[in-house]
Amino acid sequence: MKEMLSWVNGQVGAPVDVFERALQYGDGLFETIRIHRYGPEFLERHIRRLRAGCERLKFPVMDWGLLRRELKELAAEHDNAVLKLILSRRCAGRGYGPLSGQGVTRIASLQPLPEWTANPAHGGIRVRICDARLAVQPLLAGIKHLNRLEQVLARAEWDDPAIAEGFMLSDRDRLIEGTMSNVFMLAKRGLITPDLSTCGVAGVMRSVILDLARSLGIDTEIRSISLDEITAAGEVFVCNSLIGIWPVVAIDGVRSFDAGPITRQLQAALAECDKTGDGNWYSL
Amino acid sequence: MKEMLSWVNGQVGAPVDVFERALQYGDGLFETIRIHRYGPEFLERHIRRLRAGCERLKFPVMDWGLLRRELKELAAEHDNAVLKLILSRRCAGRGYGPLSGQGVTRIASLQPLPEWTANPAHGGIRVRICDARLAVQPLLAGIKHLNRLEQVLARAEWDDPAIAEGFMLSDRDRLIEGTMSNVFMLAKRGLITPDLSTCGVAGVMRSVILDLARSLGIDTEIRSISLDEITAAGEVFVCNSLIGIWPVVAIDGVRSFDAGPITRQLQAALAECDKTGDGNWYSL
Repeated sequence: MKEMLSWVNGQVGAPVDVFERALQYGDGLFETIRIHRYGPEFLERHIRRLRAGCERLKFPVMDWGLLRRELKELAAEHDNAVLKLILSRRCAGRGYGPLSGQGVTRIASLQPLPEWTANPAHGGIRVRICDARLAVQPLLAGIKHLNRLEQVLARAEWDDPAIAEGFMLSDRDRLIEGTMSNVFMLAKRGLITPDLSTCGVAGVMRSVILDLARSLGIDTEIRSISLDEITAAGEVFVCNSLIGIWPVVAIDGVRSFDAGPITRQLQAALAECDKTGDGNWYSL
Repeated sequence: MKEMLSWVNGQVGAPVDVFERALQYGDGLFETIRIHRYGPEFLERHIRRLRAGCERLKFPVMDWGLLRRELKELAAEHDNAVLKLILSRRCAGRGYGPLSGQGVTRIASLQPLPEWTANPAHGGIRVRICDARLAVQPLLAGIKHLNRLEQVLARAEWDDPAIAEGFMLSDRDRLIEGTMSNVFMLAKRGLITPDLSTCGVAGVMRSVILDLARSLGIDTEIRSISLDEITAAGEVFVCNSLIGIWPVVAIDGVRSFDAGPITRQLQAALAECDKTGDGNWYSL
């Protein structure tokens, strides 16, 4: 696909209401789903995270069967694309309340998969440490909600195209995530990814990699990580639903890494696994 | 006015682009302006806060003269209404960056002024202490940006119409603001309102009241406030651009207050002052 397409509640090109709460307050959720070979990858994991988000934000009841069918239909005509879905709480009057009674608006768009000039999955990426910190907010941690100004400000800190990602720390000095990705590091006791119970987005690809690693017999741990620990790590990589796994070969001004064997093993396993539904790698 | 009207970049009823960053990331700002006697109240203060927000979020250059004219034109046909303005960073491609080159979209709407069944300005209001805490984020503190899920979640905590507002604390146990208002308390040393350098919205009516109090010879102080202090206060009131000043007569489960003389004095002064531009009360 070349152009950008959009749908509102299944209607192609339909306008967005000015009073949508996603626009007024960021009162909504989103998913960025990779379409490959005419289907959405890891669809059930994306839907599971949306459901968790809807529960956390006290959203009205959704027809998940309808949403699932719609996403599959949108994907069915595209070999390779990015499907972004926004769920917005529909307006029920002026002000932050009342929340009930008006349902949820589904706003979908399809865009071409970004083209990366180098081959970052092979050659790895350079990252920087962002000045912008993530605020600690357990009420919103983990879910993929639409209040993303922290990421916008962090991403605005650099425009050097040689730097592909920025690491974000919490205001309590813990490494949490990249602006658009989750982070993994390899230490003595196995593969570690930051705990996201106080801030950050629990990525679908992060959950895939945790399951994939376990199926390959790699020890995994989810816990708080300091910047010192990540700079002392054996391997570091970032991941999201579009990029898969990118090795980190340098943290700017801190140190460089090699794309290590566990990163390569996970990339190979991810490339080979069946990505429908929850994913299936038990036969790897 | 009875119905709701909307404009996008000055075009009445125009649709909102699905790729607007206000919708995608909450990447924008807003103002809620009271229209009274065919003009926007305290317009220059609203514009000043927008400018501060645009600077903080690194927004592209805006034509403030055009915006000012547009807001005055929208107001000119209405005796009493609410004008809400959203500024959205226009989309310049997929992802949190790039930010440059695409300008700012102006999304305006006019709605009737809310009708309150009691007369809260006279009789005062009951408030509650919200469970939802405000995260500490100095990068976003003070400005009126579109990432408002904390307020949405706080406002969802109650539906008792007898409770008009909820007080929100920071995650460091300081009183910051109401879900839709700023808070003032009267203590021995004068009128105190919370410091908003780590979280909260610095309201236009808050700035008006600070200036009004000073012009009346009332000592004012901006500093961190604990819940204990507010419950020990002589008078407490909340304010915003629509409601003006509402005395707090009860904090639910904590204590009750009388609407005190300083609150009444400020209400009277606010009612009488000239509300064009920055406001003018030097002749009071």
